Amino acid sequence: MSQMLGKQSIKLDTKVYIMGAGSAVGPKEGEGPLGACFDHVFEDPMAQADSWEEAESELQKEAARIALKKAKLKPQELRYVFAGDLLAQSIASSFGVEDLQVPLFGLFGACSTMGESLSLGAMTVAGGYAGHVLCLTSSHFASAEKEFRFPLGYGNQRPLSASWTVTGSGACVLGLERGKVCITGITTGKIVDKGIKDSLNMGACMAGAAADTIYHHFHDFERNPEDYDKIITGDLGSVGREILCKLLGEKGYDIAPNHTDCGILIYDPETQDTHAGGSGCGCAASVLAAHILPELTKGDWKRVLFVPTGALLSKVSFAEGNTVPGIAHAVVLERGVE
Amino acid sequence: MSQMLGKQSIKLDTKVYIMGAGSAVGPKEGEGPLGACFDHVFEDPMAQADSWEEAESELQKEAARIALKKAKLKPQELRYVFAGDLLAQSIASSFGVEDLQVPLFGLFGACSTMGESLSLGAMTVAGGYAGHVLCLTSSHFASAEKEFRFPLGYGNQRPLSASWTVTGSGACVLGLERGKVCITGITTGKIVDKGIKDSLNMGACMAGAAADTIYHHFHDFERNPEDYDKIITGDLGSVGREILCKLLGEKGYDIAPNHTDCGILIYDPETQDTHAGGSGCGCAASVLAAHILPELTKGDWKRVLFVPTGALLSKVSFAEGNTVPGIAHAVVLERGVE
Repeated sequence: MSQMLGKQSIKLDTKVYIMGAGSAVGPKEGEGPLGACFDHVFEDPMAQADSWEEAESELQKEAARIALKKAKLKPQELRYVFAGDLLAQSIASSFGVEDLQVPLFGLFGACSTMGESLSLGAMTVAGGYAGHVLCLTSSHFASAEKEFRFPLGYGNQRPLSASWTVTGSGACVLGLERGKVCITGITTGKIVDKGIKDSLNMGACMAGAAADTIYHHFHDFERNPEDYDKIITGDLGSVGREILCKLLGEKGYDIAPNHTDCGILIYDPETQDTHAGGSGCGCAASVLAAHILPELTKGDWKRVLFVPTGALLSKVSFAEGNTVPGIAHAVVLERGVE
Repeated sequence: MSQMLGKQSIKLDTKVYIMGAGSAVGPKEGEGPLGACFDHVFEDPMAQADSWEEAESELQKEAARIALKKAKLKPQELRYVFAGDLLAQSIASSFGVEDLQVPLFGLFGACSTMGESLSLGAMTVAGGYAGHVLCLTSSHFASAEKEFRFPLGYGNQRPLSASWTVTGSGACVLGLERGKVCITGITTGKIVDKGIKDSLNMGACMAGAAADTIYHHFHDFERNPEDYDKIITGDLGSVGREILCKLLGEKGYDIAPNHTDCGILIYDPETQDTHAGGSGCGCAASVLAAHILPELTKGDWKRVLFVPTGALLSKVSFAEGNTVPGIAHAVVLERGVE
């Protein structure tokens, strides 16, 4: 069963294992520091599809296929898919999971969606509602720029606070069968709105939400930063990381020594011109599958706090002068008993 | 606890009660056949906000406020909000629930979102993960037309198959405390894509998904149409209803005698010029709160199958020539023991 901790956390006493994980990314991500870790690197950012959106769906299909293969399961052995992405009406997911023909819970948590997906997926499995579920998210640089900012052909200059949306997808199959990594805790985030309106500084928009969720996580679980080998946020990038460490420092928690961020890990800032780092639903999800889970599996890390972060931006609310609120969902990942 | 039934259903043995429900709608809905049943009718479709999107958030705030009041709970007594809407990046929900400051699971299931929200909300409460949760969705005629179709000022003619997006929101507070109506079963839908590409015939896009979910519901629960006092789909309208009844007829189920649809109930086709009927996330949600739950509470109905239906349309996928797949999520509502 499970225990409710504090105001926003759950401790899962039934261990939910990540039975298989898959990552599929574009060529730029393949050239980055984690390039060799991804399961599949598409040489063509269009993934041989007819549009950027369809390419993003192809990334999802490939990540899901690999996760299922590693979990030694067929799609029909999944009870639910928990999927989402950044595009309007989540079309990358709708067309990405359609062929699986599995009952779908569509999610939207902006770039925090992998945290939301793993949370609900783990609750569903631990609660006895499903034997196996698939958690899946994606993003694509070109579909995201089209959705949120400027046409690529316009060649807009990007400020140094801007992040680069990851072309990638990550998928995890969850179940009760023993694996090497399990989900043991969940802290679900509230919307945190610091009044920031800069769509080219997502790190600043999300840092407050990340700080709030991590603060409540420590409080609810009665833990400290040193109880984790790593605290890994989703896509704060270098700007957001600095703000996060400062905000948590003000609350008495020094996370800087063991904090890192998927957006910082995925690109080389010296050679890849990605400014503040990587972002997008696919950033946290693909780095989880390609880097975090393997490090836990090897045993280098015993316990990680994985905190995908989302900026609740839309071009409509942005154009109407609204703020960009943030949200962050934390999941405790532990090396399981084999 | 709960039981998994068949491939896509759950029977909840722990009864989850709808402790309070609220509805808030616009003036056109107030003039319709259910006008007197809604908790709050805004005289101004802008709800005194600065934009259509913000007006939609105001509808959510009002529906949530009423549901909480009826449940005799404060926002801080909620453990989660499960919310979603039709707009890109779910901004009506982000700005609608921000003030509640409750951990949020953002959902996207197009107009089926209230079914998804009630399903996950009930699973969460029955699973011991929460004492109380809020399920909330909305839509707004003007924000939806802007999002999906034509500028209102353009005065586009609408074919008779078109539906009219409901300006409205519905909210339910779920918990284990005894109430008059409880959720006893869930059938989660798969994406069903019949290849239809007409964004002005949502009923046809969704009917296949509704038929699939209802068919699997009957199969998984070993029930027949006559086991329900009413089978109520979300927003198929008159065109979709005809297709649904035909598709289920081909499978041997005659649901026509006790089927109705929230989109058919909410407007008067003779006087309100709404063609095939109402649609939108707010259609099923507001009719649930204003009409379905009161009928169950009165005892006129003992058991209802509530099936919100969604068309996974986006203007991008539509413009790229893609189909409009459908999805439908079914929830069994029963008059509870007092």
